[in-house]
Amino acid sequence: MNAPTATSPAHALDTFFAPSSIAIIGASRDALKIPGLLLTFLRRNGFPGWIYPVNPNYPNIDGLACYASVADIKQPIDLAIIIIPARAVLDALKDCAAAGVKHAIIISSGFAEEGGDSAAMQDAIADLARKSGMRVSGPNAEGFYNELGQVAATFSPTVDVKPDAPRLLATRRRIGIVAQSGGIGFAIYNRARTLGLALSYVVSAGNEADLGAGEFFDYMVQDAATDVILLFLEGIRDPETFVAAARRAAEVGKPVIIVKVGRSSVGGRAAASHTASMAGWSAAYDAVFAKYGFIVSDDLDEAVAIAAVLTTSPLPKGDRVAVVTVSGGGGIWGADVAVAQGLDVPELSAPLQEAIRALIPSYGSPRNPIDITAQAVHSGGLQKTVDLLSQSEEVDSILLVLSLSNETRISFKIEELKPLLDAQRKPVVFYTYTVPSQFARTELAKAGAVVLSSLLHAGVALSRAIDRARFRIAALLDCDAKPLPSDLLAPLKKGRLSEYDSKRLLAAAGVPMPQECLVRSRDELRDAVIRSSFPLAMKIQSVDIPHKSDIGGVRLGIASGQEADRTYDDLIARAKQQRPDATLQGVLVGTMAKPGVEIIIGTLQDATFGPMVMVGLGGITTELFRDVVYRPAPVGVGEAAAMLDGLKAAPLLHGFRGSAEADMEALAVLVARVSQLAARHRDLIAEIELNPVLVHPKGEGTTVVDALVVPFANGSSNVP
Amino acid sequence: MNAPTATSPAHALDTFFAPSSIAIIGASRDALKIPGLLLTFLRRNGFPGWIYPVNPNYPNIDGLACYASVADIKQPIDLAIIIIPARAVLDALKDCAAAGVKHAIIISSGFAEEGGDSAAMQDAIADLARKSGMRVSGPNAEGFYNELGQVAATFSPTVDVKPDAPRLLATRRRIGIVAQSGGIGFAIYNRARTLGLALSYVVSAGNEADLGAGEFFDYMVQDAATDVILLFLEGIRDPETFVAAARRAAEVGKPVIIVKVGRSSVGGRAAASHTASMAGWSAAYDAVFAKYGFIVSDDLDEAVAIAAVLTTSPLPKGDRVAVVTVSGGGGIWGADVAVAQGLDVPELSAPLQEAIRALIPSYGSPRNPIDITAQAVHSGGLQKTVDLLSQSEEVDSILLVLSLSNETRISFKIEELKPLLDAQRKPVVFYTYTVPSQFARTELAKAGAVVLSSLLHAGVALSRAIDRARFRIAALLDCDAKPLPSDLLAPLKKGRLSEYDSKRLLAAAGVPMPQECLVRSRDELRDAVIRSSFPLAMKIQSVDIPHKSDIGGVRLGIASGQEADRTYDDLIARAKQQRPDATLQGVLVGTMAKPGVEIIIGTLQDATFGPMVMVGLGGITTELFRDVVYRPAPVGVGEAAAMLDGLKAAPLLHGFRGSAEADMEALAVLVARVSQLAARHRDLIAEIELNPVLVHPKGEGTTVVDALVVPFANGSSNVP
Repeated sequence: MNAPTATSPAHALDTFFAPSSIAIIGASRDALKIPGLLLTFLRRNGFPGWIYPVNPNYPNIDGLACYASVADIKQPIDLAIIIIPARAVLDALKDCAAAGVKHAIIISSGFAEEGGDSAAMQDAIADLARKSGMRVSGPNAEGFYNELGQVAATFSPTVDVKPDAPRLLATRRRIGIVAQSGGIGFAIYNRARTLGLALSYVVSAGNEADLGAGEFFDYMVQDAATDVILLFLEGIRDPETFVAAARRAAEVGKPVIIVKVGRSSVGGRAAASHTASMAGWSAAYDAVFAKYGFIVSDDLDEAVAIAAVLTTSPLPKGDRVAVVTVSGGGGIWGADVAVAQGLDVPELSAPLQEAIRALIPSYGSPRNPIDITAQAVHSGGLQKTVDLLSQSEEVDSILLVLSLSNETRISFKIEELKPLLDAQRKPVVFYTYTVPSQFARTELAKAGAVVLSSLLHAGVALSRAIDRARFRIAALLDCDAKPLPSDLLAPLKKGRLSEYDSKRLLAAAGVPMPQECLVRSRDELRDAVIRSSFPLAMKIQSVDIPHKSDIGGVRLGIASGQEADRTYDDLIARAKQQRPDATLQGVLVGTMAKPGVEIIIGTLQDATFGPMVMVGLGGITTELFRDVVYRPAPVGVGEAAAMLDGLKAAPLLHGFRGSAEADMEALAVLVARVSQLAARHRDLIAEIELNPVLVHPKGEGTTVVDALVVPFANGSSNVP
Repeated sequence: MNAPTATSPAHALDTFFAPSSIAIIGASRDALKIPGLLLTFLRRNGFPGWIYPVNPNYPNIDGLACYASVADIKQPIDLAIIIIPARAVLDALKDCAAAGVKHAIIISSGFAEEGGDSAAMQDAIADLARKSGMRVSGPNAEGFYNELGQVAATFSPTVDVKPDAPRLLATRRRIGIVAQSGGIGFAIYNRARTLGLALSYVVSAGNEADLGAGEFFDYMVQDAATDVILLFLEGIRDPETFVAAARRAAEVGKPVIIVKVGRSSVGGRAAASHTASMAGWSAAYDAVFAKYGFIVSDDLDEAVAIAAVLTTSPLPKGDRVAVVTVSGGGGIWGADVAVAQGLDVPELSAPLQEAIRALIPSYGSPRNPIDITAQAVHSGGLQKTVDLLSQSEEVDSILLVLSLSNETRISFKIEELKPLLDAQRKPVVFYTYTVPSQFARTELAKAGAVVLSSLLHAGVALSRAIDRARFRIAALLDCDAKPLPSDLLAPLKKGRLSEYDSKRLLAAAGVPMPQECLVRSRDELRDAVIRSSFPLAMKIQSVDIPHKSDIGGVRLGIASGQEADRTYDDLIARAKQQRPDATLQGVLVGTMAKPGVEIIIGTLQDATFGPMVMVGLGGITTELFRDVVYRPAPVGVGEAAAMLDGLKAAPLLHGFRGSAEADMEALAVLVARVSQLAARHRDLIAEIELNPVLVHPKGEGTTVVDALVVPFANGSSNVP
């Protein structure tokens, strides 16, 4: 009866979110406590299916027959909600499985978040789910709310029905919310609902013994009733499901807004203990979010404001915004906020200014920001100005900076505003600098408008909508990494590589390497010198000497054959003296690199998401400014180029202050190939570091000055 | 009758803000239009003085005698509010002046913001004010509201009295609001009032023909009823008054929160046309704000949240915060926000954890963030935990992350909470992740608490309160710049200086300069070489060649006497060939500087605030990251050191990655002296640039490699 909408294909979780029958295990007559609230909210929200309270202490609750155990129900049960002491949960779940219950939500707390025995109980739950096929959400979950299907399977007070406060509904497009934390998940719902946003589902994942946030996310992606997805996550336990869903969301063009917490060390520590989740390394999360075009936010109201713009408006076609105001100060501030968010506030054309000037007093301004003055509200100038701007090709969105606090009047005629907004020509964002009145919210909702109360959030939402409109998911592989021959893989398995070994490996993988020779004698040196040109660089090579500079093992600017001979002898002697136990490979000889922009390229393995590739500008200052960009590996050339453009220091590569433009193309290919090598051999390679890479002027390629490939056997850590 | 509070000394604006009698010129019977609203709001708010409506068309309005003109009133008038067509305003003002009216507010629009004739009318108003001594606010103003004195001299609907919505009042300390924009000024009042903040005054300055925002600011600073000042400014027309008030506020320790708009070029353009104000150069404004410890915000709600923390709580004694929550996710997020704002979220001591553990369920966490769980709210654990933390020496503030949306219950007993908050031991900040209920706001207000609805703003507010607690106004001058002898001032008046001239000037002002000689012949060169040590730097000197490098006029690393001779000849020949018309001063010869951290120091003159001093890290990367700090000149050594520490790249000076610590002390003295030179001779010196300055290891001083002093006569611009 609560069937998914016609356009969604069948999904295993359909009967979780839209069950025909629900058993409440631990149901209670006390309507003020959690077990009682579950029953109350289910019924008050008009759940249209069968409800079976289970509690051996009552024959009935509030007119419903009450059962001593699930086994006694003897009817098909789509969902069991379990709210009994933690120690009794596992047995109750076993009963559910035996009775053929399809899904269960464990509301009870006191499992992994307590550690010890309690954590073991959670493991047993996970085990039971795996073996029985019954899908289990929680423990420590707050349940879910399905607004369309009227299923309030939660004790969150935010779903209570208040007859004196009718549901404000401004949007037709719906947001779906997935949160591990029920408190915050339902708070987002609460805030979104207050603004008049329509919801599909809110679901809290809790400790995720079985069903995880990734799986719920995946459900929202395929669900036809969900238009925008909002995630609040502490960490991800099912990264593969999550990433697959993220890719699918990107492919079908369904926007995803994410608030990721547990970013600080303290927050991360708390996240680890709270639901025993892995908050993980923020940079890896952000890299994944960036790859799939997620809109990242750190604030509930901002996230909801972004959702409001995405559900009320089409995506903007460009970044030109008209700021329309009744307050000069508000217009100036609106323009500031828009510009700070990267939007363009163009001065309007003379004809458009003339048309607007006719609608406003002489002391107003039609330039943009457009100050129509309070006077023009009364004369209908506001409505007509918005209409003109909506029709105009000069701006891509309209930001209204108004006062919408009046309890009896608003500045628009709904019958005129509604068709304008229904036409969905461009985003029209309503901001009020005074506290919005419920009257204004209610009236504007009739026209499909949501009133925002933060100008910053309004600007951010428009900016993110533009980013989203421009986002294209990167092609998976537009550059082929050569497979490595097995003789090169051997040293990886042995555990340590020198610079020479690393560069051979990289060269074999298609990463362009400088012409260098490993020499083991004066004779070999002579040949190498003949094949190079002065000045030379010479570096001692040994897997036992990873930090060559520490023993004076790197010599630069060698200008003659004699000097090369002397240097060779000295490098060997010095290494033997300072590291007598080291096995020496020889000395690496090559021409000194031409100058170029100094870049660092690296890969590492994140505990949650696996191989990641990093680019950064080299040098001490950049280290200070932490100007690096990460992406999940592998990346193609296009995505690598986007990474490079994401650096704050990107202008240096594009020819800053009259210097030559760098060979971005060669650099992007290099980044892509390194990332592909790291991804292809993720089982063997822990880290790769190319530092520095010199990027020469356009057409002249790159020089990898130093490189190191670190195999897993070497015991490297996952996160830098 | 509306006398200032006992502790304020008499101030000329006392009778402006608390008049005994008000004339409304242009009063109307139409209660829906602005002239009618003025009368309505004055009376509804219980203005306790005499009201004289002036309008020749009515014998009376709403029971009050109405006068044909101000002259007819024949009673003392403290304040006239003028709301008639722009063209009639000047005559009405003349009548006011003739009748001995003390103050006037011009609500009418259509003056400087229209330009042309209308701007001339504003000039005439200013002129009249100057000549008559009658102080005039506006035109284009929205008036003011004095909450204590019940004076609603404004048509802003935000001051309307709503019997069904009683005034929520949580704080005893009061905020005063000054805005040029009435719309935004009263919107801040509206938002603050909704939170339960007490206000002293809200005043809108409009076009500031006579009374400016600086003067109103000054009033708030001296006013005993105002505890925290909130400014919303587009630009400052009376910088001297403003800066003097800022200094006074800093000296008396009254916090100032400022939202400065018109920062973007578009916003600035709009500001310039809107109220014909000068939005100015943002960096100069921020430098002034930083100097006087202003709290800068870009958001109304954030500004109000900061005001809420400052009016409800004492300043924190340190940066350690306890995050207390009933939602695990909320606690993690609270910790993230606190850490992101620079706060410390320390794990609590074992004894304190034990004490809290006794109050909460086993699946809660007493570590910090402290997750007491929803369960502990019902058992009183929340209140007791807050009490423990309030008494503890382990944290300096408490951030509560709660759900306060319930319409009938709250998580605290007011009779227990009130004494805890009244004790003012440390800030206790209340944040709710769900939408706050009016019930919760009202109940908590009884205990003196304000409920914030943005966690980010709560974190920002705590962080700014800590900054404020740490702020000390810089001593004006702790380093004496030598006065310049008149022979050195002469070239400044002539209009151009070479590097040599500039360095002489700087040296005379006490700025340490390297040992260098200006040589004009081979003989002089020989002497100079003997007094220097190799390698040398040699630079052509001419006021006609400001960019020496462009003609190859700079030679470095000269290693012998012969090379010096050749270089001298070549520099002279090259200059004569490439700039035949240039008057050559000679060649500057000195020892090459030792290596050091590259710093840029400069001064310039801001159109609003006059001389400013700038420090920045040198080099191309820093230019890219715009890592510079400005302050109004002059600065003392202490303030200069604070500027240097304000650089993102400050770690480079403090010995980054094992390099030596730089001579910060010498550098700070150098910055101070340069700033003092620029300030002392602000009438002659437009700009000074020292670029680069090399800062050597501690105790080894600095080297000014190149320097240029640009006199005003050279026609430099004021803003970079």
